[in-house]
Amino acid sequence: MAEGIVLVLNAGSSSVKFRIAEESGTALYEGAISGIGSKPAFKLKDGAGKTIPLDLAPERMDEHQDALDLLLGIAAEFLPGRQILAAGHRVVHGGLDFAAPVIADAAVLDRLDAFVPLAPLHQPHNLAAIRALARLRPDLPQVACFDTAFHIGQDRIARLFGLPRALIDEGVFRYGFHGLSYQAIAARMPAVMGPGADGKVIVAHLGNGCSMCAMDGRRSVATTMGFTALDGLVMGTRSGAIDPGVVLYLLEQKGYTPARIADLLYRESGLLGVSGLSNDMRDLLASDAPAAAEAVALFVHRILREIGSLMMVLGGLDALVFTAGIGENAAPVRARVIEGLGFLGARLDGAANAAGGPRLTAPDSRIAAFVIPTDEEAVIVSETLRLLS
Amino acid sequence: MAEGIVLVLNAGSSSVKFRIAEESGTALYEGAISGIGSKPAFKLKDGAGKTIPLDLAPERMDEHQDALDLLLGIAAEFLPGRQILAAGHRVVHGGLDFAAPVIADAAVLDRLDAFVPLAPLHQPHNLAAIRALARLRPDLPQVACFDTAFHIGQDRIARLFGLPRALIDEGVFRYGFHGLSYQAIAARMPAVMGPGADGKVIVAHLGNGCSMCAMDGRRSVATTMGFTALDGLVMGTRSGAIDPGVVLYLLEQKGYTPARIADLLYRESGLLGVSGLSNDMRDLLASDAPAAAEAVALFVHRILREIGSLMMVLGGLDALVFTAGIGENAAPVRARVIEGLGFLGARLDGAANAAGGPRLTAPDSRIAAFVIPTDEEAVIVSETLRLLS
Repeated sequence: MAEGIVLVLNAGSSSVKFRIAEESGTALYEGAISGIGSKPAFKLKDGAGKTIPLDLAPERMDEHQDALDLLLGIAAEFLPGRQILAAGHRVVHGGLDFAAPVIADAAVLDRLDAFVPLAPLHQPHNLAAIRALARLRPDLPQVACFDTAFHIGQDRIARLFGLPRALIDEGVFRYGFHGLSYQAIAARMPAVMGPGADGKVIVAHLGNGCSMCAMDGRRSVATTMGFTALDGLVMGTRSGAIDPGVVLYLLEQKGYTPARIADLLYRESGLLGVSGLSNDMRDLLASDAPAAAEAVALFVHRILREIGSLMMVLGGLDALVFTAGIGENAAPVRARVIEGLGFLGARLDGAANAAGGPRLTAPDSRIAAFVIPTDEEAVIVSETLRLLS
Repeated sequence: MAEGIVLVLNAGSSSVKFRIAEESGTALYEGAISGIGSKPAFKLKDGAGKTIPLDLAPERMDEHQDALDLLLGIAAEFLPGRQILAAGHRVVHGGLDFAAPVIADAAVLDRLDAFVPLAPLHQPHNLAAIRALARLRPDLPQVACFDTAFHIGQDRIARLFGLPRALIDEGVFRYGFHGLSYQAIAARMPAVMGPGADGKVIVAHLGNGCSMCAMDGRRSVATTMGFTALDGLVMGTRSGAIDPGVVLYLLEQKGYTPARIADLLYRESGLLGVSGLSNDMRDLLASDAPAAAEAVALFVHRILREIGSLMMVLGGLDALVFTAGIGENAAPVRARVIEGLGFLGARLDGAANAAGGPRLTAPDSRIAAFVIPTDEEAVIVSETLRLLS
């Protein structure tokens, strides 16, 4: 009998990203259904990353349930005889309650509804997809894996804002995100780094979203994202940390609505905003426009500033790990970060960095640096199967 | 003939704080007129800090001009025969245009009006007081001294937010504040610190407002306050840096108005908000309430995090200077900050710290730490007289 397969799902407001995975986590197919509620589109690639042309004209794509129905049909057509063992969902917010993945039954979903106000752009859609799939396949086990869970052991002081206690008590707190990526990296670190993996390590997840996590003994002790995924580093289109007074200025002096400000900070800022050109680091590195150079310089500057801040929580720094799109591929960015740590004894190995690592620093470097590819979907598969067993 | 005197003025929305100073900057009298537009009150102390009881019942105190008229009367009464040479004003915002104090004539005031949207809580009142005094004493030279000017030489990258270029171009920028205090400290550092004054130094101005300034060669290279005086460290009643997503949450999920949010972040947060007890560090250090301890721990934690961040701009750290109310007086806070730098080789001299310094660290400490009292008013006097000469 053929091995089972696992669906990995990441549902947004109008899209569902998916992986159809082997039990090992390896992708059989990956893709995205987008335009839910408007003009549906379906992208599919095989495990080698090759695009598979599809001639689909779905009649209805009003909601997540229609998209998931379509996806189940595709899975049955492309993988006949393979049984879907479970669906593992990326869920942005587990609050302070969920320190690990959980079987997403009705009672758990009701508890997760409580975090919708903390992540209104993502949480409702994450949960809607779980409920829609439960209607389509009531017997299919579903697991919720949280972006916040990896950070839950942090000291409370590292998670507090200087806000009135009533707001803290209602949950206005630094939760941190990218937890599934950090969990993937933490699991791979010993193989790449040896015993140094258990030292004082900062992992830089530099993708569309960017954050860093300070780990001691491979546990999160601090992270740059805060209450939302807007805080911390400069990202592709997100501002990262800004003076809260800027938001008041946009409200009071420019008359922006909250929705306009959210658009501005989430979609028009970051590398795109500063450069005025692109949110793609490859474009900026290839450009000779001064504004592109400025965006890259700010990106690196903010990474270095936050490394300094995280280092104070760690009480030192043994190693730095780069991951995600920019971290895995943008050698010039990595070089500038490592060179910025020169005063602390970091020594770049330029050839190793250009070759993509895994080790990026010279043997005598007092801070080691590495590239480790992340795989959040594989973590979701392994956590999902672990919970079912 | 008796020496002249200088008025130092710091005008807020409903108050004018003042010093009547010798040409040396020494206070002859200090005080505040508050309740302008409501219930006026006048506080006066002599140069030794002794309160002088006043039996004043001003008929009118509708605006700054009334308060300044009263102050001129007091000066004439208490210091007969002493000529007022000039008035030096603390003006919060000089934008990127004013790198130094300036004679505040009508043309300059018109230019300073342009910064009202950048500092709506302070700038209009600072300028209103200058105009009111010009009406009362058209021949009195007046000088504007800016809280932003000390930071103006910073690299542009240290001052950028990750925002759209159009906002950057219209002035949404990290200006930094407390510049008059940092200028006072920079002037005193060589006498206290010797040649180390010209190294890589972080000055922590910890008063009602709190910020830190990284200096290299006694010039500002980075600072924790940003576009407004809300950013950076946790303060008495101000939040310091928070995720901009928190402001969106307060707007969208809790329905707060911008004015309510400004009140919350400026007046109800910080030490007061976290402790639920007091904005006064003395109260918190004396309290055995867990919430008071948490507020102090967060205050220290945020200082250490920002030291790490500033250190990355400096490329090292030779010395740390504490100033202003908490910095000059709260030995337990200083001790915890210095101990938090232990992994970088800082070694507290506990007895020296308890005694108030000036040097707080042991001879073998790899980072030296000092207390240096600040005197912003004396800087305003010397700058004002310098411009007149």
